Order: sequence, then structure tokens, then C-alpha cells
Amino acid sequence: MANSDDERWSTGADLMPNRYIPNEVELDSERLQLITRREEVLGASYRLLYKNPVHFVRGDGMYLYGTDGSAFLDFYNNVTSLGHAEETVIAAITAEMRRGVFHPRYLDERIVDYSERLVTLFPKSLDRVIYTCTGSESNDLALRIARHATGGSGLIVTEHAYHGTSQSASEISPNLGREVKLSPYVRTVRLPGAYGIGDDEAEAFFTRELRGAIEDLDRRGIRLAAFVLDSIFSSDGVHIEPSGFVRGAIDAVRAAGGLVISDEVQPGLGRLGGSMWGFTRQDFTPDLVTLGKPMGNGYPVGAVVGRAEVINAFGQTARYTNTFAGTNIAMAAAGAVLDVIEEKGLLPQVTRVGAELKSGLEALMAQGLPIRAVRGEGLYYGVDVGDAHSSASERWRFARNLVNFLRESHVLIGLCGKYEDTLKIRPPLITQSQDVRQFLAALEEALVCSGAE
Amino acid sequence: MANSDDERWSTGADLMPNRYIPNEVELDSERLQLITRREEVLGASYRLLYKNPVHFVRGDGMYLYGTDGSAFLDFYNNVTSLGHAEETVIAAITAEMRRGVFHPRYLDERIVDYSERLVTLFPKSLDRVIYTCTGSESNDLALRIARHATGGSGLIVTEHAYHGTSQSASEISPNLGREVKLSPYVRTVRLPGAYGIGDDEAEAFFTRELRGAIEDLDRRGIRLAAFVLDSIFSSDGVHIEPSGFVRGAIDAVRAAGGLVISDEVQPGLGRLGGSMWGFTRQDFTPDLVTLGKPMGNGYPVGAVVGRAEVINAFGQTARYTNTFAGTNIAMAAAGAVLDVIEEKGLLPQVTRVGAELKSGLEALMAQGLPIRAVRGEGLYYGVDVGDAHSSASERWRFARNLVNFLRESHVLIGLCGKYEDTLKIRPPLITQSQDVRQFLAALEEALVCSGAE
Repeated sequence: MANSDDERWSTGADLMPNRYIPNEVELDSERLQLITRREEVLGASYRLLYKNPVHFVRGDGMYLYGTDGSAFLDFYNNVTSLGHAEETVIAAITAEMRRGVFHPRYLDERIVDYSERLVTLFPKSLDRVIYTCTGSESNDLALRIARHATGGSGLIVTEHAYHGTSQSASEISPNLGREVKLSPYVRTVRLPGAYGIGDDEAEAFFTRELRGAIEDLDRRGIRLAAFVLDSIFSSDGVHIEPSGFVRGAIDAVRAAGGLVISDEVQPGLGRLGGSMWGFTRQDFTPDLVTLGKPMGNGYPVGAVVGRAEVINAFGQTARYTNTFAGTNIAMAAAGAVLDVIEEKGLLPQVTRVGAELKSGLEALMAQGLPIRAVRGEGLYYGVDVGDAHSSASERWRFARNLVNFLRESHVLIGLCGKYEDTLKIRPPLITQSQDVRQFLAALEEALVCSGAE
Repeated sequence: MANSDDERWSTGADLMPNRYIPNEVELDSERLQLITRREEVLGASYRLLYKNPVHFVRGDGMYLYGTDGSAFLDFYNNVTSLGHAEETVIAAITAEMRRGVFHPRYLDERIVDYSERLVTLFPKSLDRVIYTCTGSESNDLALRIARHATGGSGLIVTEHAYHGTSQSASEISPNLGREVKLSPYVRTVRLPGAYGIGDDEAEAFFTRELRGAIEDLDRRGIRLAAFVLDSIFSSDGVHIEPSGFVRGAIDAVRAAGGLVISDEVQPGLGRLGGSMWGFTRQDFTPDLVTLGKPMGNGYPVGAVVGRAEVINAFGQTARYTNTFAGTNIAMAAAGAVLDVIEEKGLLPQVTRVGAELKSGLEALMAQGLPIRAVRGEGLYYGVDVGDAHSSASERWRFARNLVNFLRESHVLIGLCGKYEDTLKIRPPLITQSQDVRQFLAALEEALVCSGAE
């Protein structure tokens, strides 16, 4: 491939693609003082977003509000996916806190009621649940279960995947950069879309990638435990086409005795509109599914959902208890999220508004603005920006400038992809047509102006 | 040693020492139905406490209330350590949820204010914080930091330690039972108190244990990363005497280039009364401290506190973000917990009431009831029960019967220790003298009667 890993790292994006770097922009003394206080007490792993960091004091629906009361449109939001300060969820959590906290080693209807409701959203074969507090804990637990059920230790992920921050999850997260080491038991595979492979060859390409990784593990006597995939490959830059391109790869994994773990932390729970889960959109049924971020609209809730045979192979012999997971409070938060999605009819709205967003992004590309590709569905898009003939690090700088230009226009989005030159556009499920119009107008202005910086 | 590991496992305690076993006790149809529904949707790793499982619908202060409205005295509580449904913490969380959720990649005073307050509770050298959502995440992260800072991979823990449920934390948690495998890089050491070593020889014994483990790792070319200790050895059965017995061991760890990680999830945050942290009581200063359970009185909050040099060696090169950790909501919960501890003067109360509890337990032992030892301080006690001449599995059965007898008397406590024959008595920090009297009366009756079962 033309771009070596060296070029990726040379972007400096591995410490966080859009991080605050001191003295790049002049800041007021109030923020400088707060930044100094942060540095004197928080670990250096804490980094601020944006050249010109933001300080919010309030959130409401689509908006976050700065210290001067000005509103920022939040199009980069996969936690409070029902909007900021959503009252139904807050009321459910508060009422339940007043009852007390009950963990699942005592009998409680809450966890049973919610779990029964949750599994109806999945294919019939995925009928058992274990709760966690975070997406990282979910992926970490899914790996434990997969190793236990298969007796294997080999793992396969995509080239720029992100699956979490625990030791075990970080070892399968190449996205975290050079200093966070991968496990010697992990192999990475390339995505067809990231290498310009056409739709008709995509499945064959990806199947070959998986077979190669399996063979490479086998050559070292490492038995395959699982292929872990974010089902729309969010951190790799959002790759969803052609639908079903992962099927051959999944067959190869199963033929080798491995399990398939679908990481639905980012694509799941309605973000794609037409499909509740990314794996439905990709037309496969995983053995284990992991959930996190938007599950409690900000309250820490995660889960592993999977086949009884697999989950119970682990649970019948191993002990697993997670103090804060599956409590009545966590279940109330998660239940209220499903209530709001249903009562507000958010899934069809995501499909409708998402289509407007997609066609608006495509129209900007058609205008000849520096957009190389638009990928995604519902309310999750990856938009490759910058000139196709420029280097990866030049494109990353362009993308970073663009995101910072948008921040100055009071619109929040992020970056993703191997070279962090892809805009990550991920507004909450409550997004309406007028929000999309506001966003597109700001993006158009940014595309026109930010190249000039 | 007289008791082989076989005897430990033969107790059946490794799947959870006081778990519900179907058909051991006759249950009403309401609970049987709920249990059936649980089994059909929750993973098999979920186990219920008690022969006769409890179903609570409400909590308030020291008490949990059953479906029939009857009150249970909760003397087994290290999460809502300010009591159930504590209003100050609930109000703080609710008010902050109404503002919105802000993560630490945006500027926010909350995380800075709380962190500055938190580090004042530690020795000066421990001045940097990273937040997590759970104690497991805290220990997992501390291990990542220790490996990064030392370049080593070897770890040492005590024989029956518990440090969490992530892959990496579970690999240093022998307490989780045979099926949860330890890492090949971990060595376990014996506690003097668990082997009848006298106070005058305790430090020398424990130092030899650590030296032996370090040598064993070194013989295999494994460089030491850290010695991880729960500073009062909770899961090992609560061992706090003689104060300072760990010092020689800690010197040996440092001489070998390893870090010392004090797991304060159980002993920390005021439980010992006179000392905010277990390591203060044990008279050593760790390099890293991990926090969890009681930090948010039920809201999921954890942290790693440590030396800037160590924490920043990790953070300057590695990326670590934890979506739900360090948010304004988590910080509001944690701040309210410190407020209540201060405003109610809980630390001196814990010392005073704890002394009453301890002398009451010792009085029961002096009466000739089947208590072999009372260990602990403040509001955390390990009480060895059963006949000294009986086998470990007989003692475990006696202890389990005792805890279940207490449950029938509407008093909740747990079990700990290598053979799970130690009562784990851990009431909330708000415990008053009359609660201690109620508990001691129930325990006396149980000790008199439960042997007869």
C-alpha cells in the first residue's frame, strides 16, 4: 500500500486526533487557569478536544451551552443519544435511586423485565444477557467468554478498530496508537472499502483477509477464539457497503472454530434507523453482542447478549459479578431509553432525517467541495475529506482544521479512520430536519473556508 | 500446610460461598417464577445469595425492606456505605443530570474541584488522578500503568485475593475459583495471620514470602511490575495485625523495581474510622491506589490515584479515555459522599461504634461460642467461626448455616477467607450503637442455634 504506517503515526493523531495543544491558539485566562489546575491534578492521559477547548455549563436536547450562554449544536454524540438532559430518563433514574440500589444477587423484577424486553430486539438465538457498566467491560467480558467457550486465544480485529480501554480490550484496539501494545495473539485484517476494492470484489477480499489471519495464527499453534468486529467499522472510518460483505469472512471464522463478536457499542440501539443493530444491516448473526455508550443515555450501563450455549459455558463454571451492573437503577435508565425510542417513534425518524443528512452530504461532494466519499446510514456517517492527491498527514491536517472551523461555528463533530481524515458525524437520535439544515450550512461554509487556513 | 487446596475446592464455595442452590429450601411460587424467568434470560454466571433468596423492594438507611414490608438490617454493605437511598447524594446526582453530562475532554470545574479535594486526603506524593467507573476498571488500569512504568509483567498478590472481574484483574484474583485462571505472570504469597504466625514473626514471614515470589519470577526471566494488595486483605479474611507487617515486603518489592498498588476498594474511604485508607493503618505509602465501590454511594465511580511520575509515564504516551468516568455527574456523586462523611462526622463515629462492635464480638468469643478469632477495625471485621478441630469444609458449612440463620433473623452479612469460613461484617458508615446491639443479639442467637441445624 502507498501509505506506510509511518505516515499514519507522523500525523501525530495517535495521542487523540483533535487534541488541544498548548499555545496553538490564544486562550482567555479563565480557561488557562482551569487547564493549569487540570494538569496539576489529573493524569496526563486526560486530553482536551479542540485547538480552542470548550467549556460547557449546560446541555438541553441537541445543544450544549458555553459559559457565555452561547449554544453549540452537538452532532458528535453517542452517549446521550436521546439528547442532553433527557427528562424521561432522569426521572426514571431519580425515582429508582429513591427506592435504593439492589444488585442482581438479590431477586429483583427490574433486571428480569428489562432483559426479557432487550432480547426481543435480537434474533431468537441470542437470548442470554450479562450486564456490565461500560462498553469496555462488555468487550472485555465477551473476550473472556469466547476464550472460555472455545479454548482458543487467537483474536482477529480490523486494522484501525477500537474496542475499549481495559488491558484486554486495549490489546485488540489498534486505534489507540503505537504505545498501547496489541496482544501477540491478535491479528488485524484490512477492510475492502479502505483500500479502494470495488463492491463486487469486497466479500472475496475480506474473506481472504480473514483466512490469512486464521492461517497465520494457526501456523503459530494459536487456536482462534473470536473475530471481533464493530459491525459498521466506526473507528475504521464507517464502512457499511456492500451489505453482507462480511459473510464469507464470518463463515471462515466459524469453520476455524472461532466465535463472532459484534461490537454494537457505536452502531447499535437505533442509530442506523432501519436496523436496531449493525449486524442486521450487515446480514449476519453473531454469537455474542456487546453494548455500551447510549444504553442508559449517560448512566453507565453495558451488556453482553449472546447464545445461551456460549454464555452459560462460561457462567456455569466461572464466577462473574459486577457490583454496579444490572442494578435496578441501571435497568430503569436502560428501560427509559427504550421507552423514549418507542414512544417518540425515533427509528423511522432516524431513517427519514438520516436520508436528508446523507443526500445533503452527497450534494456537497457533487458541488466539488473537498469531500472524497460519504459512507453511512441513519445517523452515523464517515465523510472522507481533503484532496485525494495530498498525503495522509496533509489530509489529516485539513480534516482537523475543518473540525476546528466547525467548532468556531458552534457545531461539534469528530474524526475517525486510519489516518483520522474522515469526519465522524454522529448526531443524537432526536435530530430533526432543521438541525440537519443547520449542520449542512455550517459544514459547507467550513469546507469552503477552512482549506484557506 | 494441613489444608490442601483440594479441601478448599471441596467446599463448593468457589462458585460463590453462600449461593442459592435449587431445592435446598422450599420457596413460594412468586419467587420460584422470578427465578425461572431469571434463568431463561440471564447468563448462568448470575447467582443468588442465600439458601432462601431475598427480594427487596425498598431501602432506607440501615435497612432493606422485603416484599411483605419487613425490614432487614444490612450489615453487609460496602457500596451504599452512607446507607440506602441517601438523600444528599441522590439530590446531587439529580441536579447534575438536569444540567447534562459533560465528559473530561471538555473543560469542566467539577472534575478539577473534586480531584483537588480527593488528593488532599492522600500523602503529598500521591497527587494525580484518573477516573474509572468501577473498582475492576481501576485495578485493570493500575496494572496497565504499572506495566508501562516498569517495563515488567510480573505480579504478586495474596493467596485468596480479589481484585476484580476484567480479564486482567481476574487473572490476579485467586478468590474467583479454579475455573478463572491466574496469569502465568502472577505469583501468590501467604499471609502470616492465615497460617498462625505470631505477631513478632509476621513481618519476617511476609518478607520471605515476597522475596520468594520475586525470586521465582526472576528465575523465569519475568521482571516484577507490581505487588497488588488489598491493604486489609479483605477477601483473605481481614488481616490487619500487627500494624506495619507489610513494610519489609514492600521494601523487597521496591528493591526489585516493582511498584506497590494498594487496592482501597474495600478498606478505603473511611471504613476503618481512624484512617481514611487501609495503607495508612498499615503504615506504608503506595505508588498507586485504586478506588471503587463506596465512592459514589451506588453511582458507578472509581479512580486510580498515584504518583505523578508513574501515572504520567503512562499518560504522556498512551491514550486512555473512559466514556462515563469523571463526568460532572460522577463527580457530583463522589463529592456529595465526601460532604456527608464530613458533615455527619462519620469518621469518629465509625471509630466509636466500631469499637463497640469489636468488643461485642470479642465478648461472644469469650463466652465460649464457636468463634475462633475476631480481626478488624472501624466497621470491617472478619470473624472466624466453627470448631478449630473440624475440617475446613465442615467449618465452611457451619459458617454458611450461620449466615443463613442470620438472614432468617433479617440480618444480612457475608463470608470471606480462603475457606469461606470467616464472617464478613461490613455495615455502613452510618451505623449507630443500637444497630450494633441489634446485630450482636442476632449473632449470639445464631451462634447458639445454628450449630444445631
